Amino acid sequence: MRKGNFKRLKGKLKKIQLFVFDVDGVLTDNTVWMGADGAELKRFNIADGMGVYIARRAGIPTAFISGRPSPATVARVNELGIEDFFQERGPKRVSFTKLLEKYKLSGDQVAFMGDDVIDVPLMKMAGVSATVPHAPTYIKRFADIVTSHEAGMGAARELVDLVILAKGFDPVNLTYK
Amino acid sequence: MRKGNFKRLKGKLKKIQLFVFDVDGVLTDNTVWMGADGAELKRFNIADGMGVYIARRAGIPTAFISGRPSPATVARVNELGIEDFFQERGPKRVSFTKLLEKYKLSGDQVAFMGDDVIDVPLMKMAGVSATVPHAPTYIKRFADIVTSHEAGMGAARELVDLVILAKGFDPVNLTYK
Amino acid sequence: MRKGNFKRLKGKLKKIQLFVFDVDGVLTDNTVWMGADGAELKRFNIADGMGVYIARRAGIPTAFISGRPSPATVARVNELGIEDFFQERGPKRVSFTKLLEKYKLSGDQVAFMGDDVIDVPLMKMAGVSATVPHAPTYIKRFADIVTSHEAGMGAARELVDLVILAKGFDPVNLTYK
Amino acid sequence: MRKGNFKRLKGKLKKIQLFVFDVDGVLTDNTVWMGADGAELKRFNIADGMGVYIARRAGIPTAFISGRPSPATVARVNELGIEDFFQERGPKRVSFTKLLEKYKLSGDQVAFMGDDVIDVPLMKMAGVSATVPHAPTYIKRFADIVTSHEAGMGAARELVDLVILAKGFDPVNLTYK
Repeated sequence: MRKGNFKRLKGKLKKIQLFVFDVDGVLTDNTVWMGADGAELKRFNIADGMGVYIARRAGIPTAFISGRPSPATVARVNELGIEDFFQERGPKRVSFTKLLEKYKLSGDQVAFMGDDVIDVPLMKMAGVSATVPHAPTYIKRFADIVTSHEAGMGAARELVDLVILAKGFDPVNLTYK
Repeated sequence: MRKGNFKRLKGKLKKIQLFVFDVDGVLTDNTVWMGADGAELKRFNIADGMGVYIARRAGIPTAFISGRPSPATVARVNELGIEDFFQERGPKRVSFTKLLEKYKLSGDQVAFMGDDVIDVPLMKMAGVSATVPHAPTYIKRFADIVTSHEAGMGAARELVDLVILAKGFDPVNLTYK
Repeated sequence: MRKGNFKRLKGKLKKIQLFVFDVDGVLTDNTVWMGADGAELKRFNIADGMGVYIARRAGIPTAFISGRPSPATVARVNELGIEDFFQERGPKRVSFTKLLEKYKLSGDQVAFMGDDVIDVPLMKMAGVSATVPHAPTYIKRFADIVTSHEAGMGAARELVDLVILAKGFDPVNLTYK
Repeated sequence: MRKGNFKRLKGKLKKIQLFVFDVDGVLTDNTVWMGADGAELKRFNIADGMGVYIARRAGIPTAFISGRPSPATVARVNELGIEDFFQERGPKRVSFTKLLEKYKLSGDQVAFMGDDVIDVPLMKMAGVSATVPHAPTYIKRFADIVTSHEAGMGAARELVDLVILAKGFDPVNLTYK
């Protein structure tokens, strides 16, 4: 993200108490490796995972809302210890509303990142809405932030870092020394 | 695709009633992950799959014609619910002609995307012929459109969006809200 | 490859009667996907495979010489029907010399593509020596050609096309119509 | 790495007697391919592996220190014959200190490459600290070298080459002929 944008968005970023990420095309490069008999692999990024840990150390939980059920996503959710995970077909705002109720938050305390048409309703509800470079132009117009990092290559971490830095934390001091 | 081209092609794009895609090098990055004993994986793109759904909502079916049989392609065909799928070795115009007969269409009502020498006959028969950035120069000269997106990274979706927008639909309103 | 180079090399390219390719870093992106218990995948390119068919149609066989044995490479060799395949650890010039004897060719009738230090002896023996963009500078100095395409993304096909075009063939007319 | 940096760092590079590499995001592109039931693949680079062999021929051993245990990493360690391998969760300086004791070296005789917050302590302890293009800005400020090559695409080999060349070896002469 460009520096000017950071200054302009800093007020919004400081309010964030919850991260919500779409999975395909946000935590992955929007592709699936498919084999015979329904076997499939997804490619997850270690820096994004470290972002989840850093956010947790800073007191901010992370939720995933996917529109495409996959055992590969479940594996990643388990590795990262994600408590709030939704992978139902259908409108995503149902899951998003559940999260707001559980954490007693309003939309402007949530940062959401998505990349396609089914994410637009959440981009409208979230206080900070972010998307990735590969998103179509008609998606980007709903985003406060278009990340510099590609999806699945640090885009999610970039959003975490923006919030962490806006709140005055130093990421280097939020892990082992 | 550049804006000027869109204006010039808009008349052709509005006529499209069927999408036909080659698989390797169009819906994938033209690579196959191979292991021992013939196991293989192909990498498919979620935005391209969403394009198939968006086209279907707009009343336009999608067919795949591959020259290289693979169980990975079958898995993707099943996930997307593609009814018209051909994966025989031999000239592709045989399958293409069957599609024209089934849907009672002429060639100029079909948009086709391919990337190599065996796709050239279909590029000549289709009303809108498209290819991808990695295609050789001697293939690109048969294409009305060279996509901005790489193969397997949204090239197919780009063609769907062009047709959808030419017909006056808004992609954001063709899925869940 | 730049146009000026093609003109300069055309005489050498016309003499080629055999293609010899290193595997890792030439037919692949120089990476291996590794799992538990020694399982591994390699990523092969369909356009490169089509190049092998096109060369065969033009009467030019293709050989692979790898320094790293792998069942993934064997799978690709079988799919493409490669007759001359070597995957022994040790100096590669032993296999190369066997090929010259089998086909009764001199080195200047062979086009070879490699990417690392163990390929240098063959780059010196071949009439046309090619390498890929990722090769170190100290390898590129032994190459007549540095391809425009990345390894595993059409670099081998680019070399085939150069030879095919230098000999006056049209690649579009060497396959199904 | 830029030429000017090489001249400036040559004195430091000549002292190196041990390479230490982080795994994810240094020897890989920082991603993991995940499937059902905890299966996973990591993508390793052949040129980096050749770098380990070249370093060994020049008398310099290589160690890996990972913060994320994975059977895929074990497979690569076994293939390359890496004797010194650590994959424990927790601070990495514990493993680094063990290496200094085993080889009776001081920190300035070690070249280390890492890419994230948990690598910062080792970047401070090593004589030559390197990182990769994808590292966050707040990591790069601890690095003597930011490689030109991406992680998992030759970044480790680039560091090996810098040390090898600084010591006056020719990489082409350190393998089979």
